[in-house]
Order: sequence, then C-alpha cells, then structure tokens
Amino acid sequence: MGGVSIKAGIVGGAGYTGGELLRLLLNHPNVSISFVHSNSQAGKPVYETHRDLLGETELCFTGKLQQDVDVLFLCVGHGAAKSFLEAEQLYPGIKIIDLSQDFRWNESLNDNMVNSCGRDFAYGLPELQRKLIQESQNIANPGCFATAIQLALLPLAKQGLLTEEVQVSGITGSTGAGQSLSSTSHYSWRSGNISNYKVLSHQHLHEIRRTLQGMQQQELPGINFVPYRGPFTRGILCTSYTRCNLSQTEAEELYAGYYKGHPFVSISKSTPDLKQVVNTNKCILHLQKEGDYLVITSMIDNLLKGASGQAVQNMNLMFNLDEHAGLKLKASAF
Amino acid sequence: MGGVSIKAGIVGGAGYTGGELLRLLLNHPNVSISFVHSNSQAGKPVYETHRDLLGETELCFTGKLQQDVDVLFLCVGHGAAKSFLEAEQLYPGIKIIDLSQDFRWNESLNDNMVNSCGRDFAYGLPELQRKLIQESQNIANPGCFATAIQLALLPLAKQGLLTEEVQVSGITGSTGAGQSLSSTSHYSWRSGNISNYKVLSHQHLHEIRRTLQGMQQQELPGINFVPYRGPFTRGILCTSYTRCNLSQTEAEELYAGYYKGHPFVSISKSTPDLKQVVNTNKCILHLQKEGDYLVITSMIDNLLKGASGQAVQNMNLMFNLDEHAGLKLKASAF
Amino acid sequence: MGGVSIKAGIVGGAGYTGGELLRLLLNHPNVSISFVHSNSQAGKPVYETHRDLLGETELCFTGKLQQDVDVLFLCVGHGAAKSFLEAEQLYPGIKIIDLSQDFRWNESLNDNMVNSCGRDFAYGLPELQRKLIQESQNIANPGCFATAIQLALLPLAKQGLLTEEVQVSGITGSTGAGQSLSSTSHYSWRSGNISNYKVLSHQHLHEIRRTLQGMQQQELPGINFVPYRGPFTRGILCTSYTRCNLSQTEAEELYAGYYKGHPFVSISKSTPDLKQVVNTNKCILHLQKEGDYLVITSMIDNLLKGASGQAVQNMNLMFNLDEHAGLKLKASAF
Amino acid sequence: MGGVSIKAGIVGGAGYTGGELLRLLLNHPNVSISFVHSNSQAGKPVYETHRDLLGETELCFTGKLQQDVDVLFLCVGHGAAKSFLEAEQLYPGIKIIDLSQDFRWNESLNDNMVNSCGRDFAYGLPELQRKLIQESQNIANPGCFATAIQLALLPLAKQGLLTEEVQVSGITGSTGAGQSLSSTSHYSWRSGNISNYKVLSHQHLHEIRRTLQGMQQQELPGINFVPYRGPFTRGILCTSYTRCNLSQTEAEELYAGYYKGHPFVSISKSTPDLKQVVNTNKCILHLQKEGDYLVITSMIDNLLKGASGQAVQNMNLMFNLDEHAGLKLKASAF
Repeated sequence: MGGVSIKAGIVGGAGYTGGELLRLLLNHPNVSISFVHSNSQAGKPVYETHRDLLGETELCFTGKLQQDVDVLFLCVGHGAAKSFLEAEQLYPGIKIIDLSQDFRWNESLNDNMVNSCGRDFAYGLPELQRKLIQESQNIANPGCFATAIQLALLPLAKQGLLTEEVQVSGITGSTGAGQSLSSTSHYSWRSGNISNYKVLSHQHLHEIRRTLQGMQQQELPGINFVPYRGPFTRGILCTSYTRCNLSQTEAEELYAGYYKGHPFVSISKSTPDLKQVVNTNKCILHLQKEGDYLVITSMIDNLLKGASGQAVQNMNLMFNLDEHAGLKLKASAF
Repeated sequence: MGGVSIKAGIVGGAGYTGGELLRLLLNHPNVSISFVHSNSQAGKPVYETHRDLLGETELCFTGKLQQDVDVLFLCVGHGAAKSFLEAEQLYPGIKIIDLSQDFRWNESLNDNMVNSCGRDFAYGLPELQRKLIQESQNIANPGCFATAIQLALLPLAKQGLLTEEVQVSGITGSTGAGQSLSSTSHYSWRSGNISNYKVLSHQHLHEIRRTLQGMQQQELPGINFVPYRGPFTRGILCTSYTRCNLSQTEAEELYAGYYKGHPFVSISKSTPDLKQVVNTNKCILHLQKEGDYLVITSMIDNLLKGASGQAVQNMNLMFNLDEHAGLKLKASAF
Repeated sequence: MGGVSIKAGIVGGAGYTGGELLRLLLNHPNVSISFVHSNSQAGKPVYETHRDLLGETELCFTGKLQQDVDVLFLCVGHGAAKSFLEAEQLYPGIKIIDLSQDFRWNESLNDNMVNSCGRDFAYGLPELQRKLIQESQNIANPGCFATAIQLALLPLAKQGLLTEEVQVSGITGSTGAGQSLSSTSHYSWRSGNISNYKVLSHQHLHEIRRTLQGMQQQELPGINFVPYRGPFTRGILCTSYTRCNLSQTEAEELYAGYYKGHPFVSISKSTPDLKQVVNTNKCILHLQKEGDYLVITSMIDNLLKGASGQAVQNMNLMFNLDEHAGLKLKASAF
Repeated sequence: MGGVSIKAGIVGGAGYTGGELLRLLLNHPNVSISFVHSNSQAGKPVYETHRDLLGETELCFTGKLQQDVDVLFLCVGHGAAKSFLEAEQLYPGIKIIDLSQDFRWNESLNDNMVNSCGRDFAYGLPELQRKLIQESQNIANPGCFATAIQLALLPLAKQGLLTEEVQVSGITGSTGAGQSLSSTSHYSWRSGNISNYKVLSHQHLHEIRRTLQGMQQQELPGINFVPYRGPFTRGILCTSYTRCNLSQTEAEELYAGYYKGHPFVSISKSTPDLKQVVNTNKCILHLQKEGDYLVITSMIDNLLKGASGQAVQNMNLMFNLDEHAGLKLKASAF
C-alpha cells in the first residue's frame, strides 16, 4: 500500500472544509495534491488563506481546473457542486467526492444511489454501507449533524427498533457555519452565548430519515431535532432518546456488534465529553438505559467525521487503502 | 416607599449565590445589610472573596449570627439550610428566604406550603403565586433549571394543556456548579467543551412536576429533560416542546395574558439568544408552532432569576416593595 | 437632585457604544431619553438591535434629529462626529459629549481645550480635570486604551516622575472593535486565539502623551505600547512599568492620595483580574515594586469606563449631579 | 529508518505532558510504548485519564518501573524528576528526557551540560544546539515560555545584538498550569478573564538568560518579562522588542539564515495569530521594525513545542531519526 499514490484535486479549496481537507491530504501517505482550485484566491499561496499551513506547503491556489487527477473533492457550497458538474466536462474516470448536500439521498426510497449529472452517487457513510462505497465512483458525503445522529441510531434501525418517536438535541460549534461573516458568528455575539435554530425543521432530517427508513421495514416514527449554536469552534454533540425494550446490556451488545470492525466508532462506558473527539475523525457513542428510554449520546468533530475527515475515509475505501490512512490524528484534547 | 429600610442578613455569604446577593443588596434602595455570615471567611473583607466588590463596601464577613434583622437569606448548600434552622433559635419574626432545595415543594400535592423547622415555606416563584409570597413569612427559592422550565410551561398547565409528553433540553453555564473546584469546572476541560449529565433524571424535575400538577386537573404527562453543561459562565437556555392544539396566535395570546403584569417576563417575537438575559433578572420566552408541536424557548440568568435575583424579587414582594426594586440591572449584553 | 431631569439625545444609537449608553440612561435617575438617532434603523424598536432591551423600553430609533435636548451624545464613528457637527446647526445651548476621537487633545500643548466646529472641547477624563469638565459645554470622551493607560500613569506624571521609558502591554476584548463584521472578530477565528496589532504604533498614544506631557515639566520619555486582541468580549487590562525611585509604600501613598475622592478608581492590594471591573464603570489599579521598576496594572471595562460609562460620568459632572448617578452597576463578576 | 523501533517508557503519565506525549508516541512510526507509569492511576486504562485515547489504545498505567527501554520520559513535577533519578537505579544505557526544570541550565556559564544524578544533561533546545542533543544521553527539555522567548531572540544573541534592554510580554493558555485544580484554573473565574502574574520575576528568565549569555560576548542586558494568563487552553504568544540597528530586511535575512534547516520554525511575513501553531510542534515568528525597535512575535503550542512535542523532537535527534518523525501534526486551526 505504501507504493500507492493518488492524485487529488480540490475544488473550492479556500473554505473551511477545503482547508481541513488540505491539512489531511498534505500528511496523507498515499496522496499527492495536484491542484487546489479557488476562484477568489487564484495565484495566492494556500498558507495565506489557511494560515496554519505556513511552513507546510508552498502550494498556490489555481483558477484552472486540471483533469489529470484520480479523485476530485468538491468543497463548494450547496447548489454549486451540481452547477459545477453540469458546467464542466470531467473525464468519467475521475472519482468524485462531494461535500455538499447536492447529491445526498433523494426522495426515492427504492434507490441506493442518486443519479445526477450523468453519475451515480452513493451516500458516503462508511458505517452504513462500506462495501457500496468501495465500489462506487461518486460519493455524496453526509452532513455533519446527519452523521452524528445516524451513527447514534443505525444499530436500532438495523434491528427494526425505531418504533416510537425519537427526540434529539444537538449542539454545534461555529465552524459548522463556515467562514463567511455573519451576525451569529460575530465573536462579541457568540462568545458565552447559546441559541437554538431551525427547531424541529433542520434540513438534515431528510437524509437521516432516508437512511433509517431504508434499514427497517416498519414505518419510521417521528424524529424531533433541536439544534443549538454553541460557543465553541469544533464539534457536535447529540443526545437522542426513544422508548426501547432493550436492556442496558442488550443495547451495549447491539451497538458493539454493529460497530465491530469500524475503526472510527468507539463506545464509551463513562459519560463522554465533546473534546474527546475534537480534531479527530472519531465518533464516540455512549448508551444509557433510563426507565423505558434508551439514551444515546454521539459526538463527532464537524469538520472531520462530519465533513473532510469522512471524505478522506471515503476516498480510502474507494481506493482500497487502509481506512485509517491519513486519519490517525492527534486529538487536541483541550 | 423611599423611606422603607429593611435590615438583611446573609448566611453563607462566601459562595456564588451569596456574592450575587451582596451585589444586588448593596445597590438596593430599601435594604441595609446588617451582616454577612461565613464560617470560612469570618473577619475578612467581603471584597477579598467577591473581588469585584473592591471599592463598593468595607463590609467584613462575620462568624456570628445577628438576630436584629428583618430578613435572613440562607445561601448555604443543600441540606445545610435545614440543619441551620434546626440548630439556631431564630426569632419567629425574622423572614427567611432560603436558596437551597431544602424547603421546596414536598411530595404532598394538597399543600401549598412546606412545613418544616416550625415554619411554613411557600414556593417562591412569583409568576406562579405572587399573592401567596406577599403573605408568606418564609420562602423556598426555586431551582435555576426549575425556574426556566416552569416559566416555559406555566401558561399551558394553567389551561390544562399539558396532556402529552413534554421534551426539554437545556444548557447551563458553569456558575450553576458553584465555586467549588471540580474536574468539570476545570478551565482546560470545560472551555470549548459540551457534555450532558443526569439525562432524564435531573433532581429539579420533582419541583417542576409538583408545580405543574398542582395547576391542572389532568394527570401530568412525562417530562423528559436533557441537561447540558455549556462552555460559558452565566445563564440557562431551555427548549421545551409538546403536542398542542393551540395555533401560533393562540399560544402567543395565552402567554401574553398569563404574564401580563409580571415585570420580569418578556415574550420575544424573534428567536432569542441567551445573552439577552445575562446579568439581569429577566426571563425571555419565545413561542413557535412547528407542525403539531408548540416549541417554547426560555432563558434566564441562573444566578439572578435562577437564584439571588429571584430571592430579592421575593423579598420585594414580602415587604410590599416595588417588585423591580434593586433589580433594574444593566445587561452585560456581550 | 432627585428632581433634576435631563433630556438626552443619542446620535448613532445602533452601535455598541450607543447601545451601552442606552442601557445606562434608561436606568439613570435624572435622565429621560428624548430620542435615539440612527439612519440605518430608523423606525424600528431599539430592542430589535439591542436585544437585551426587550421588555425595558418601547423606544424606536428615529432618523430625525431633535434639538429640544439638554445634552447630545455622539456615538458615531471616528470622523463622522466632526462631519455631523459641521453639517447640523445645533443650538449652542446643547451640551455635546462626543465618544469619537475627533475632538480629543490636539497637538498644541498650550491648550486645555480643542476648538472645533465653533465649540471648545475639554478632554473628558474626570480623574485628570474634573473641575474643567464641570464647567465645560463640550466633552471629548477619551479612548478606551487611553483611559486605562492614563489612569495608570497620571499620579507619576503629576509628580514629574515619568523620566525613563515606559513599557506598556494591554489586552482588549472584542467589543472594542464594535459590531461591524470582520475577520478578526469572526468567532471561529478569535475564540481561543491571541494576536498583537499596531505594536508600538497605536493611535491612542497621541492622547496619552498629550495628557501626560501636559502634567509634568520634564520632557516625557518614550512610551512603548503593545496592544493585544484577546478572546473575550469586555474589558481592557494593561501592565505598565518604568524605572522609579519610589518605594512600594511611597507609590501606594502617591496613588491613594491622587485618587482620593475619585469614586471609580480603586487600588487593589492583591493581584487583580479583569473580571473585577467588567460591567462596571470602575478602574482598578495595582502597584508592585519589582527591583528598580514600578509595575502598574490597570483595568477597565472598555464599553463603560472606556466609553459610554465615562460619557455618563462626564454628563453627571457637567450637570452637577452625583458623579455616581446611574453608574452603580452590578458587576457581572463571572 | 522505517525499521527502527524504539522502546519508550513514560514516568508520570497521568498528567498533561504525559498525556500529550502518549498522543504523540502512539502515532510515532518508530516508537513502541513499553509502559506508562503512574502511581495514582496504576492498573487503569490510560483512556480513563486521557479520555480522547478511547479507541486508540488498551494500554494501562503501571505502578512498576521497567528498565527494558531505550528512552525514558520524565513527566513528573518540578523537583520530582531529580528525586526519582536519585531513588531509582536506572541502567546507564537508558536515555533520559526530562520535562521538568530540574536539570535545565545551571548557574555556571562555563558548562554546556548540567551534571546531576550521575548524568550529564544537555539543554534540549534543538534550534540552539542540535548537534549536542544528537550526541547526548540525557536531555533537560526547556520550559514553555523559555522556548517561545529564546526562539525569538537566538539569532540576535548569535550576532551579539542584544545590547539594550529587552521587553517581553507573553500570554499563556490554561494547560500550562497542568491538571491540578486551582482558583485560577476554575472555569467560572478564567473564562473571559485576563490577569498577569510573576511580573518581571518569572522563573524561566533564568534559563533564557543562561542560553542567551552563552551565545554572545557582550554582557546580556536586562530582560523584562510580563506573563499573562489567558482565557484559552493551548498556546503561548510572546512579543519581544529591543533597540536594534538592523533594518527590516536585514532582520529578516538574519532570522531566515539562522533558522534555515530547522523544520519547525517558520517566519511569517504577515502578522500571525496564535491558532496557526495550536496542536502543532511549530514555532512561528514575525519580525517588524518599528522606529528604533525590532519587534519579534513568537508563538508555540505550550504542550507541544513547549513540552511534549519538543521532547519527541529531542528523542528523534538522539536516535538519529527524521526530526519530523511523529510530529507532522494537523493543526486544529480553529
């Protein structure tokens, strides 16, 4: 495997997910970055935008697309990925990993793939369908909240145990809102502050429901989700609960069995905290039976397992690399 | 009213709620502080412990109790308030406002008062029972999460509209855990971190249920509460939702009617954020009908409306002062 | 004094200093707010912009200037205050308090007043020249860093003891940069971050030097100032040191003597921390002799003693009110 | 080099520097961890203490020392390292890297090594004396502030240009104070707060002076250092300035020349910010000529280049590995 070298291109490299992808790929043992595309920063060194990369690379952004790559990561905004693929005549052999929501699950529950722009996109949640991802040419990378919530509920759905309403609350760091300036990401406002938004109507509910309904025969119950903006930069922590007949031990066995062999998911016996996963590609889960309810806490770093890290994990699978390659990251821990 | 002067004593003045009470009473137009009791800090200036009070007062902590007061605030830990009253022979004429949980609602739904230590304690939530508080000699000040959640649900309970399960999530600042050092209040741990605790089993559920069940005939449904520790110092924000037949307009009218004449509760048309209430005695509510659900967001400062501010509000009522006296506080806002 | 009622107008009321002024004046016992001018928010309730004011006032911004006021606060940007006064024909009897830098000390060391726009402006640092302020019609409110540094050095300058280079470092919260969105006030950037800026070239050095040179005969030595942006919202802490022959005791006596009778300055025996002054109009100083050096730590809230609070203090002096009126603020403390 | 495998032991593995070392060594391509010693946690999995390591390792702390190692890292407190070496009979062949201050520069300026406990300790600042480190058996790892300040001043000292007083201010994150609970690391106190400490008397001045004086003939001038506690967890940013005849260009050339070939030091043309280095082993410097002064900004992560990362860098040099091995870390960036 040491000999494999994948040529990667990044489109939309000046944003947060593009920068995070650069941080990962620069240290990835099997990847060379062919180009980083950005219209706004073309010609400038990437370290002028992603300033922590000073001393790491002399790469400059380019305004020209190159086709001599094995894989192309699309880190552009929602809507822009589809426009990009429609406008460009990409060689069919180039694999695509799209980090926007443009090619995630469509409405039809009969399909495993979303067909669009002449390509079939598989939903890129490795813990759901690793084999399909390995065989796919195009990946729609899941949303950040969607990843955290699905990983909390997949084992239950697999057993058809999602029969009663599911309640979810979750808190996200500010990087989930990207680098564009806005009143809710102004430091003087957000520091020490908390607010909810899109209560019971978050757009990720669609892809969450699509996944879970695809796994169980029974009709999926309601999933109520309260998202919060938190005063921190990285990470998502979700608490989900639903009535469930499993005992504590049965739940632990179910989850341990489901996630066996998935290197990025761990189950914590003790109550976890968000910083256990910050700056890693890990998801940590915690299970607690409380009365009739099973409570599942799930945590990820929104820019890694919730975006660019999962994109690299998908790339590793698509190119038959070690799923861990380039993703053995030191947690920041503090 | 300008002429009224109430002599107040504070027991347990070296802790967070004691300090906050001092900050309020020093500026209260109708109060003179007779003494601030602390065993650990006896003899030292209060500004050595509550360092922002430097330049405000030369008061020193005392280890001796004085009985020549009109009102005594108990700011000692849970359990210690009861022990204190049992051990001391307080003049019956001294009014008591206890900030611990020792004298909050007892189990019996038939009683409006908790009888203990030879005194009858009224539950001190002015928006629930202002008249009873005005006539009471002893007050059990509500818990912080309990205040935020009750204020979200009182109008529904009054109309008997709490018929289906209520889901609540809430996030609290670090001052809720007081000044004792602990791993979950260590800066390196808590900064940028999120964790849940006591999921579906928080101790405040007891007083919340007691209040709400006391207001409606129908049996109270389950109330599921997920508390979070947030990386900020002051404030609590809760999101509650339940199925409810009211329309958006009907809900707004119900809440506006209920809180008319209550000076510290405001209803926001736009989505609020926690810092609107930080360093004030206010509670801001926001109502949103989403499908079948009514979503209520409620926010308070845990040390003020959730503790010492509400204690002063109760004192104002007990002494027939303007409910606002000493509580027109400048929000810190940022 | 209770009978006095001053009619105040605010120009530029939608910004941070305008909002902070509103928070103060709404609770000021001797002030009624006649109007709050804002071009951008005209017609809207002030609580839509300063959201913590919900429930406090129904005032709306206006686009029209009224002249029926006793005092006008100018809270517009640097440069805009002068333009405003040049464009408007204000009644000469209206007192002006300008929070911009437009009318602060000019270059001439012979003048105590800056003459501009047909008005004489006194530099509004009460601890420097309270009497002059009391007699002035127009005040140029000092800068925030300038206030913190001058209060650290005034007693030395008065004694002609600033003879060797002065080194100053200071850290400011994000509100000093106002509410306009910028990359250095983006939450994802500023949280957990530190940076310096304008090292040895900060614009406030001008007014600092002007004040200090005006107080002592000897030529003022160099003052080197390193400003930092800190990851917090409110407050400024400065550390100044210079070679000085005073002993610890002599220094304490000098400062105690100088600030006697100035209600907002306190001298702390123990090492202070910024949050002792946050959300107050206070300045806390700390003195420490270390070898040949006298080290002075000074701390203020940049929006209060560093801006709107000092403006109200100046107003109190100009109208012969208690210097403390409307400024007995509860510290947020945490 | 891929074949090299170094057996490493850690003493004092339950603290912050021990945990950070574990995070690094677990991913180091040439190291296997033989044991992690902790008296307090003996027998427990390391992930119970360093909770982010859940899913990374099943290693448990041990209370027994093993001697079958190539290198031993001492992560115990100041004073305890010396006691440990005095009490234990370590095989002389075991290399020692001590993270405490026990074996840093002694008073004698004639020695390059500190001789203690029968061992000669070299001061482990690779950018000062890489060759000596490569040949040394025992390393005293520098202090965190000492690293940041020395890296700012080394090129000047090498040229004998430190002739006038040097002024330094620096701000450190909370992890510098370790994991023991204290009032200045209590979240409610430190959040949003700033304070200085040990002004002009910080203990790291000793090792800083010793290094710099050892490099230049001229007597070293005074170095005045104002340290601050900042409201963030990781990192140190220092601003140093001194009168210097070099032009901006000459200074840049001097520093570029000095640090050529040192992989962890970069010089930024634009004003840097602390988060460029957080969670990396890098030091970023910035140079600015301002009047007669040369201003040098230097930034490191206190737990990495300021402690455990530098320890690994020293190990790499001692074992003739790539200096970068195990230290290509993804910055957390936000």
